Amino acid sequence: MPEFRQDPVTSRWVIIASERGRRPTDFETPPPRSENAFCPLCPGNEHTTPPEILRVKTDDGGWDLRVIPNKFPVLGVEGDLDRMGDGMYDRMNGLGAHEVIIESPEHNTPLGYLSVERISRLIQAYHERYVDLKRDFRFRYVLIFKNQGEAAGASLEHPHSQLIALPVVPKRVHEELVGARRHFEYKERCIFCDILRQEMKEGTRVVLENEEFVVVSPYAARFPFETWILPKKHQSSFETLDAAQSHALARILKNLLQRLDRVLGNPPFNYMLHTTPLQEGPNEYYHWHMEVIPKLTKVAGFEWGSGFYINPTPPEEATRFLREARVDREF
Amino acid sequence: MPEFRQDPVTSRWVIIASERGRRPTDFETPPPRSENAFCPLCPGNEHTTPPEILRVKTDDGGWDLRVIPNKFPVLGVEGDLDRMGDGMYDRMNGLGAHEVIIESPEHNTPLGYLSVERISRLIQAYHERYVDLKRDFRFRYVLIFKNQGEAAGASLEHPHSQLIALPVVPKRVHEELVGARRHFEYKERCIFCDILRQEMKEGTRVVLENEEFVVVSPYAARFPFETWILPKKHQSSFETLDAAQSHALARILKNLLQRLDRVLGNPPFNYMLHTTPLQEGPNEYYHWHMEVIPKLTKVAGFEWGSGFYINPTPPEEATRFLREARVDREF
Repeated sequence: MPEFRQDPVTSRWVIIASERGRRPTDFETPPPRSENAFCPLCPGNEHTTPPEILRVKTDDGGWDLRVIPNKFPVLGVEGDLDRMGDGMYDRMNGLGAHEVIIESPEHNTPLGYLSVERISRLIQAYHERYVDLKRDFRFRYVLIFKNQGEAAGASLEHPHSQLIALPVVPKRVHEELVGARRHFEYKERCIFCDILRQEMKEGTRVVLENEEFVVVSPYAARFPFETWILPKKHQSSFETLDAAQSHALARILKNLLQRLDRVLGNPPFNYMLHTTPLQEGPNEYYHWHMEVIPKLTKVAGFEWGSGFYINPTPPEEATRFLREARVDREF
Repeated sequence: MPEFRQDPVTSRWVIIASERGRRPTDFETPPPRSENAFCPLCPGNEHTTPPEILRVKTDDGGWDLRVIPNKFPVLGVEGDLDRMGDGMYDRMNGLGAHEVIIESPEHNTPLGYLSVERISRLIQAYHERYVDLKRDFRFRYVLIFKNQGEAAGASLEHPHSQLIALPVVPKRVHEELVGARRHFEYKERCIFCDILRQEMKEGTRVVLENEEFVVVSPYAARFPFETWILPKKHQSSFETLDAAQSHALARILKNLLQRLDRVLGNPPFNYMLHTTPLQEGPNEYYHWHMEVIPKLTKVAGFEWGSGFYINPTPPEEATRFLREARVDREF
């Protein structure tokens, strides 16, 4: 059984996925994928995946998007949450959901090159799964994310996103909540709204903007070409996203991904959604957003171990490169 | 000029190393190193490095170890620390020291295969530089670390460690200090001493032990085969390390690195030293240690962005593999 364990010093929860039981030799680099390798996410192979949770159908009986349980989930969805002591330590059984969102039937079209309508439907699928999993009171957070490219941790080439529903709030999100609450107590303003105001005024770190969203390269970016996509109006949770917003988010995300591709040549990347925890309701201090992080540098372990980041590309320069990139058209 | 910038939400400081000014094309994968490439750290090429800070001489006029300033430092050592506002943001000039410790003249001998005496001298060199930099009251932390292997961020093959003296405490260390202080307020005991007691009693996560140090695979390990080396007796700062300890640390480190090599086949890895900040004096609540992290998995960006770790190898299994590995002899 997978389990959650808490580090007693930092209070950080970690999933120990003993089911996966990776032995030393399992870490050897896998051989490069062959062009014609079997893809379980392609049309025609639906029977090889676990039964689907959601399907967006096409008129001809096919599908545009599918959501399925992860075949090798890091958490199991059955049972109640059991918190246990283990001497001085704390652990919980590995309760959670782990789903795969197949973004389109097309194996060779990366997300940034799907139509705006398809990307918008993908965002709506994120939202639909989010709202559905919220009904399960065992969960406190739904982490929606995408790994693109092997170096960013993608184990399948076919474009897909993932979500993990958790009985705990991830540490980075918790830190943001604490910082945002502190700012609100002091100023009675949302810190992200303050950031947006300053960025819009200054302009040097604003990569893109449309009627609903802004893409900024954050002032203290940890990684080269790191960007955040923030809703313009104050909105604490992804839950309240509406149809107009999901269309606007699709347009700005497509635009950003194409620019990253132009500037960095199809970089591996991760994005993830940060939002108010599930059972907390709307608030005035937090502001949901997406963080988009190209995987360009290799100094991982050092930065993991110290929490100390060295970014060789100032966000103002990253912004300039991304703004000057030519995309076929604005979306 | 490089500068420190603080994320207003999480209070995390980041170095924006604009000196390095990495443009998009600078992130392309470098060609593999050729066998006979020029190595600035090898004997005979001393004139190509900045003037040395420390040299451990041999009887024949050569050297066993050198410390030099990093030729491409991420921080500059001149001037006073200036804290500045930048609208709602905070920044500081990039004041700090960045040094390279060349571990031995031998290009092809990894650290784990140097003699105990040499490793002990290396640890003493860390200590000597630590104590020297402590005298500079502009600095609050000296981060001592090693990247081995390209995937772990090493840009030179020749075995070397690095240190960065900082006017701020790295976030991960700060988190540990906060957690350790909380535990101490509650129990009046050092949390790391408590961890050691429980681990020694249970045994399933104790990889190695000698008269001065213990190697454990931590209960909530973030990474497969992550281990921590802790002094057995309570000691809040690396500063008070004595000669017997540095010899004992050399022996256990050599033993651990050889076991990692046997089990994982020369894995890229990072280690870093966590200790009480420079100007704080000894205390009862914190316990310095080394964290050793092999770089085996690729799910970096996701874990960076969420602070949420999935470890596919339970620490008890990692411990068993490391304990069962055959090394030539115990050191």
